[in-house]
Amino acid sequence: MPGPEALPDEFALIARLFAPLAKDAPGAYGLLDDAATIAVPPGDELVVTKDLIVEGVHFLPNDPPDLVARKLIRVNVSDLAAKGATPLAYLLGVVLPRGVTFDWMKRFANGLAADQARYGMTLIGGDTTASDGPAVFSLTAFGTLPRGSIMRRGGAQAGDLVCLSGTVGDAALGLKVLKGELPWLDEASRAGLIARYQVPEPRPELGVHLRGLAHAVLDVSDGLVADLGHLCEVSKVGAEIEAALLPLSSATQAVLSREPTQIGTVLTGGDDYEILFAVPPSAFPAVQSAAASRRVPVTVIGRVSDGAGVRVIGPGGMPLAVKGGGFRHF
Amino acid sequence: MPGPEALPDEFALIARLFAPLAKDAPGAYGLLDDAATIAVPPGDELVVTKDLIVEGVHFLPNDPPDLVARKLIRVNVSDLAAKGATPLAYLLGVVLPRGVTFDWMKRFANGLAADQARYGMTLIGGDTTASDGPAVFSLTAFGTLPRGSIMRRGGAQAGDLVCLSGTVGDAALGLKVLKGELPWLDEASRAGLIARYQVPEPRPELGVHLRGLAHAVLDVSDGLVADLGHLCEVSKVGAEIEAALLPLSSATQAVLSREPTQIGTVLTGGDDYEILFAVPPSAFPAVQSAAASRRVPVTVIGRVSDGAGVRVIGPGGMPLAVKGGGFRHF
Repeated sequence: MPGPEALPDEFALIARLFAPLAKDAPGAYGLLDDAATIAVPPGDELVVTKDLIVEGVHFLPNDPPDLVARKLIRVNVSDLAAKGATPLAYLLGVVLPRGVTFDWMKRFANGLAADQARYGMTLIGGDTTASDGPAVFSLTAFGTLPRGSIMRRGGAQAGDLVCLSGTVGDAALGLKVLKGELPWLDEASRAGLIARYQVPEPRPELGVHLRGLAHAVLDVSDGLVADLGHLCEVSKVGAEIEAALLPLSSATQAVLSREPTQIGTVLTGGDDYEILFAVPPSAFPAVQSAAASRRVPVTVIGRVSDGAGVRVIGPGGMPLAVKGGGFRHF
Repeated sequence: MPGPEALPDEFALIARLFAPLAKDAPGAYGLLDDAATIAVPPGDELVVTKDLIVEGVHFLPNDPPDLVARKLIRVNVSDLAAKGATPLAYLLGVVLPRGVTFDWMKRFANGLAADQARYGMTLIGGDTTASDGPAVFSLTAFGTLPRGSIMRRGGAQAGDLVCLSGTVGDAALGLKVLKGELPWLDEASRAGLIARYQVPEPRPELGVHLRGLAHAVLDVSDGLVADLGHLCEVSKVGAEIEAALLPLSSATQAVLSREPTQIGTVLTGGDDYEILFAVPPSAFPAVQSAAASRRVPVTVIGRVSDGAGVRVIGPGGMPLAVKGGGFRHF
């Protein structure tokens, strides 16, 4: 029986796996040139973001390669979504450990193909190299929006409603399940939480409808309390949220009813990739109607206030002491 | 005595070292947001390229950090230059090994500062993470040019002159010196070759003047013969160059007079980051005059022909057998 196919040289790898992902972008020049061109429609401006993922830090060596690729695309789409941009294209930087097989890369490319189609993006270029260290994938994502309409982290005002898309805490609990914690949880809940960790659900379809309505927006990657803290810091305001208002999946509800202290994980765990935003009450009905039409749940979880910092009101009406601001790399 | 200052957390690192590099770009939002915006002047289009460098592959752990940073910027500027684009901005992805010190990063940031000023670019965003593996720096560079004026690898025609900026082979010989080879070479020549390896000299000031004149352009990174091969392949032509015409530094001339077989290194070694282009003879005077006014040496080294592949004519008029097409990562 033949063994796993070894990687072809970098030019063949690009031609076989990556060039097909670039075929719909004229400015990618078939990935045969030194650079790509991006034509921004008149009246629009380009939004760019860059998130990289490292084996052993953001994903595990045994993670399914297609899911690694999809998470890579999605964490970047999430940044575009939070700014109100429509995804357009991406560049991919790849550092491969020596042992990686062609099959692994093929499945990785399949994941890219699935999600670039989902979000309407095309690959337009990048760089591929080998290394003795862990795999690193660096993605630069491009989106467009009408000039001047980008939503920022700053801009929240006292009295604004604090809103969150989707549910919170699933990804952080999913990571715990992957690490062998919560062994008592039923299979379906375990699988659901893991899926939320491995394949987040960015919300570009909501983001574009928040333009002109929300005062301040970001996506939740470091953790709900930490990211709300970032929003407050840049906006020079404070905020109060209520634990009882948090949108929770049934799996997370099951975890919390048996282990109430996991509320800390829900509040500070990262990787949710939901949209957190501040919106004046007068604009909330328009947000709600846009969200409903896009079938994205949006929940009011608190209020922006004068002052500084984030307060979390616990189930009994008393402030919760939240330890640890959120995930930091070092 | 206090030891070396440890790295602050990622937010402080960004605030102290990277935010100052972004202060002149309004669309960078002080590196405090999820994404950046790029405003492309009307009539222009955006050129994007991404080259990453890995510790142990593209640079050595003991290399001066400011030179690592400058090489990172320059290899990307070189891609923009070869397309005729004027550098504008960049995103920086950083993967840091656990032991890196604040001083190392500060010197790295100083290198970025020096070269972003030199090439008229500003940092507009990025991502920073830690890892147990080698350092990885991933840069996405942005440039602009009038819409439709990008120079491609394809387009060379039989009869075109093959031209090269600067000198060839210095960087590859510099790497050999760093590895302890060529011990007989004088100090000044050794230092000069090493400098060419560590701090390449991209040619954006030449590139913009080749627009409308050159038929096909790329920068020499994999090696002269390999990159001319890429240009020929995409252009569907062949080329013949003469070893006797190659522009050589005095250090490289000294190496070749003692070790004539190093002509192989000169022809196939990478990292030159000079511009290689095909231009019709009728346009060459205009190229020469532009190059002279920018003080960039340009040398005719051969001719484009019908057919395929690259032939190298040796000093005696006989074809040279060139082993190895150029550098490949795997």
